[in-house]
Amino acid sequence: MRILGIDPGYAIVGFGILESQRGQAQLLGCGAINTPAGIPMPRRLLQIQEDLETLIRQFSPDAMAIEELFFNTNVTTGIGVAQARGVILMTAAKLGVEIFEYTPSQVKQAVVGYGKAEKRQVMEMTKRLLKLSAVPKPDDAADAVAIALCHARSHTSRLYR
Amino acid sequence: MRILGIDPGYAIVGFGILESQRGQAQLLGCGAINTPAGIPMPRRLLQIQEDLETLIRQFSPDAMAIEELFFNTNVTTGIGVAQARGVILMTAAKLGVEIFEYTPSQVKQAVVGYGKAEKRQVMEMTKRLLKLSAVPKPDDAADAVAIALCHARSHTSRLYR
Repeated sequence: MRILGIDPGYAIVGFGILESQRGQAQLLGCGAINTPAGIPMPRRLLQIQEDLETLIRQFSPDAMAIEELFFNTNVTTGIGVAQARGVILMTAAKLGVEIFEYTPSQVKQAVVGYGKAEKRQVMEMTKRLLKLSAVPKPDDAADAVAIALCHARSHTSRLYR
Repeated sequence: MRILGIDPGYAIVGFGILESQRGQAQLLGCGAINTPAGIPMPRRLLQIQEDLETLIRQFSPDAMAIEELFFNTNVTTGIGVAQARGVILMTAAKLGVEIFEYTPSQVKQAVVGYGKAEKRQVMEMTKRLLKLSAVPKPDDAADAVAIALCHARSHTSRLYR
């Protein structure tokens, strides 16, 4: 099964692509879609839509894993992230990719085995489980790989569609 | 100038289309995109994208007017609305429609002449200014017509792109 992990944002969308077979996961690629700060939000959202569509067509994932969104103190950033997340969900639906949602503690539980693990521990275990020489860069890509790995190792999840 | 007013949501997207010339605005059409509650959010977002694209291709608006999003107490609903709004902004950018944002008080000021007007007054003035026999239905369509009318009557606005 091929899994696309996504760390949503409007400035940076992290992505990681895993091939998972019989409990063994292999990293096929990871990176980030970056949108320039100088262009208006609708054009940033359009770039995310187009780049993500290209990525999905290139790798043909069976599933997308994405974090559940919850709002912290910065509501303005939260609105921007939710707008980008809407475009990401829509694009996956358009291309027939099944979507699975996980909470941060589900990711920690699945990757580290402890729902309150530190972010650093998640990164270290992601690197070890995928036999990587280094933690993926940027952080958004590493987070995306971790959530893809969470899906590869999870037997329960809230299926979105 | 042809203006598409949008009242964003994930269950109902209200829309209203005005033709505005030399200070006189005429309602060409209004209504709502409804997405069924029973289908998953990504598919609702996809339906909004497709239906809005069809609407824009049909009416070829020069501008889209949409309310600025701010979050009230219901954050869960807020995330859903923001996700839908992201899809709406992206669709307008895709089709080259200029986007203008207004606050609720800007809409009230432009339509009623008083930034703290009641919603009922906005509806009544919308009906009167457009010489309609009744306030548009549903409420989401009426709100969308009001924001389109706001843009037709405004000389200042925050241009999004």
